[in-house]
Amino acid sequence: MAQPVVTPLCEELRAGCGDVWQSLHEHPFVRELAAGTLPLETFRFYIEQDLLFLPNYLRAIGLAIGRADGDEEIELLVSEAQIVVGRELESVRALLRRVEELAGPGDAAPEPAPTTVAYSGFLLSAAARGDAVDVMTALLPCAWSYADIALGIADEIAEHPIYSDWIRFFAGTEYVDSIAERRATLDRVAERAGESRRRRLGALFATAARLELAFWEMAYTQEQWSDMEEAR
Amino acid sequence: MAQPVVTPLCEELRAGCGDVWQSLHEHPFVRELAAGTLPLETFRFYIEQDLLFLPNYLRAIGLAIGRADGDEEIELLVSEAQIVVGRELESVRALLRRVEELAGPGDAAPEPAPTTVAYSGFLLSAAARGDAVDVMTALLPCAWSYADIALGIADEIAEHPIYSDWIRFFAGTEYVDSIAERRATLDRVAERAGESRRRRLGALFATAARLELAFWEMAYTQEQWSDMEEAR
Amino acid sequence: MAQPVVTPLCEELRAGCGDVWQSLHEHPFVRELAAGTLPLETFRFYIEQDLLFLPNYLRAIGLAIGRADGDEEIELLVSEAQIVVGRELESVRALLRRVEELAGPGDAAPEPAPTTVAYSGFLLSAAARGDAVDVMTALLPCAWSYADIALGIADEIAEHPIYSDWIRFFAGTEYVDSIAERRATLDRVAERAGESRRRRLGALFATAARLELAFWEMAYTQEQWSDMEEAR
Amino acid sequence: MAQPVVTPLCEELRAGCGDVWQSLHEHPFVRELAAGTLPLETFRFYIEQDLLFLPNYLRAIGLAIGRADGDEEIELLVSEAQIVVGRELESVRALLRRVEELAGPGDAAPEPAPTTVAYSGFLLSAAARGDAVDVMTALLPCAWSYADIALGIADEIAEHPIYSDWIRFFAGTEYVDSIAERRATLDRVAERAGESRRRRLGALFATAARLELAFWEMAYTQEQWSDMEEAR
Repeated sequence: MAQPVVTPLCEELRAGCGDVWQSLHEHPFVRELAAGTLPLETFRFYIEQDLLFLPNYLRAIGLAIGRADGDEEIELLVSEAQIVVGRELESVRALLRRVEELAGPGDAAPEPAPTTVAYSGFLLSAAARGDAVDVMTALLPCAWSYADIALGIADEIAEHPIYSDWIRFFAGTEYVDSIAERRATLDRVAERAGESRRRRLGALFATAARLELAFWEMAYTQEQWSDMEEAR
Repeated sequence: MAQPVVTPLCEELRAGCGDVWQSLHEHPFVRELAAGTLPLETFRFYIEQDLLFLPNYLRAIGLAIGRADGDEEIELLVSEAQIVVGRELESVRALLRRVEELAGPGDAAPEPAPTTVAYSGFLLSAAARGDAVDVMTALLPCAWSYADIALGIADEIAEHPIYSDWIRFFAGTEYVDSIAERRATLDRVAERAGESRRRRLGALFATAARLELAFWEMAYTQEQWSDMEEAR
Repeated sequence: MAQPVVTPLCEELRAGCGDVWQSLHEHPFVRELAAGTLPLETFRFYIEQDLLFLPNYLRAIGLAIGRADGDEEIELLVSEAQIVVGRELESVRALLRRVEELAGPGDAAPEPAPTTVAYSGFLLSAAARGDAVDVMTALLPCAWSYADIALGIADEIAEHPIYSDWIRFFAGTEYVDSIAERRATLDRVAERAGESRRRRLGALFATAARLELAFWEMAYTQEQWSDMEEAR
Repeated sequence: MAQPVVTPLCEELRAGCGDVWQSLHEHPFVRELAAGTLPLETFRFYIEQDLLFLPNYLRAIGLAIGRADGDEEIELLVSEAQIVVGRELESVRALLRRVEELAGPGDAAPEPAPTTVAYSGFLLSAAARGDAVDVMTALLPCAWSYADIALGIADEIAEHPIYSDWIRFFAGTEYVDSIAERRATLDRVAERAGESRRRRLGALFATAARLELAFWEMAYTQEQWSDMEEAR
């Protein structure tokens, strides 16, 4: 059957929030990471918050599995969860250990900063309210922008005992291929989606991209709740 | 049977975030609302965001009903939902119509501001992850602080064609009594809770109280996503 | 805008499982209830299982609220929950007390029979997997068939100290009107539904109708798990 | 720290439903499977229902991930999902293809039988209502009894072009080890559980074991909804 020529969903989604996507690449956190000049304590703050965020990313995948329509969606989501558990979490924990070797131990039980709460809540609420395609869309900016950012700075990175490994992980073949597979699945699933559905997916993607940007900003400024700032 | 003397949970929860609770009363939005000097467009922004927030408040109650342990919890939660649907939503919509009569129509389809997304997400994620007691705790600061604030300024309010009604609704007997009932139920349920459970409830309550404060601040500053600010 | 002439969803759903629907009216439990000849212990078993089932019916409504699309769906679902909590549960509990007055106390903590587990599980899994319209459809045969059955036998009921009240409740104006409202909302919401969606709703409705029939059969035979039968 | 000597949870759970557990081993479906005398159409019916059941088993794991307390629970659940997706589903589909080679194509779109609906619903409702430990407990009898049954008949199986492979998969080291790991995790997690919690877990496990038995019976009798029986 001839399909009408439609822009693949993922391309449309990224184009729909072009300015925010560009800002992700230009954020000082990312620039200083590439240059190797990012203060180690700033990176530690980021890694600690990431380790508070990733379990919620996995919980959102889990809820999406609970609501998945058929075997294809279930299998893709389980494989995404497997990559986060088996590769990403392990890699992020290794980075934290390296920071601790270089800079000493950090806070034993760091608290989620406001943007970690907001971003986690956004993903879990998309999962609580929507279906598996909604969740796959809300999760995509995080995974995709990491690959995009890492590929964008892979050629210019200064050698650094820790940051180079962060970039190599997300620019690595395994990670980049997994993003391509997710995009392909979402594009295929979305061929059936009507206008209003695509608009809703566009809103989810755009909000997630904004929260990605807010997450870098949170890390760069070591954001705190206002009543806790005075306590520091 | 003699109960050990324990501080009732709700009193403990409020004491645990005393500074934030105090800040709620002192926020310029609240002060100017009482004085009748709050700009109408600021109030409109607040009301519009509240109408985007309240359905998520109801969704969180719904998910908690889905996870409630027994008939007592179910019945309390249904009655809370009934108050929001049958009284609060109606009252807030009436306020918006009054604003529109006085100041003309607003944006036909306002978008959720960052703090509305964050607070909605926090409630829905508490509901997606936790049980009914977790959700009741996360929902409490919103309802309780409104009654508390309204009672606190009830004696000093300047007459105002709109704001006085807002205050009267939340300082009214029906609303205030419903809060007392919720607190009593939560106190009773929590008598069985151990130390670690009470700590987790304390964290949920404190985060919700901070998001309440952030909500007033959002309204007062007419907060926007940074990429949309330039577009205004 | 002119709507194409479509059979209203609910009419289509009931027609789609016509034989089962007819069997509900003819089940010996229902016939003997109308004739006043149903053994009181059979009715007690039914009422006890109903009191184990209804909280799950409410939990399914709750989960549907958590996933509802907009204010109209939320408000309808909250009002359904309100009717079950405020009227139906109260009425069923009163019937149980009357049975106990007439026939003495029953089992202090009856266990859910296999069909109660199956029907509860079906509703909660429809709610865990689907959206609010799925849940409203899965819940409908229970509520609708009760009104239908009660109206069908209202003219022929023998006077009975307990059974007449059961019939009067479900044939009463308040209950019957609430069903009409639910059908109207579902019909309206489903005008937007395509073929494949209507098929899925048809399957949910048919399974729920079969489980209704199984529930009467369970009560009539005082069904038990096979390993517990020997223990009786 | 010295632990009090407690029976490990899983041992207690199995002992708590000893008769049902024993009946699983003795069910004619299992006996005829071992003897190689089970009619191929009976096995096909079983496999088709299993392929309708397993996605719901995965959905329940997914919902449990959404509600998991910490990283250990999340990682165990993702690994369970991975085994079902990556090994079990593949193995069951291969068995169905072998049946089709030997006995010709079956029904293109088989419908879930009553017990498949009941068991799926039970698992999803445990996941909709409970926490991750509840779900792990409700899922355990299925996985554990398969390994137990397969190990029990591994020495006596008649050579059969299909059934021998079914038994070898579930008696295989990889599958058996994964069960041991699940039991160990659940035992460890449950050391913290009080009496009433253990009782609730016992009820979930017992119901799941009964539904396992009902599933073999369903397959053996090629169970149908009563209104569909006449149509066959």
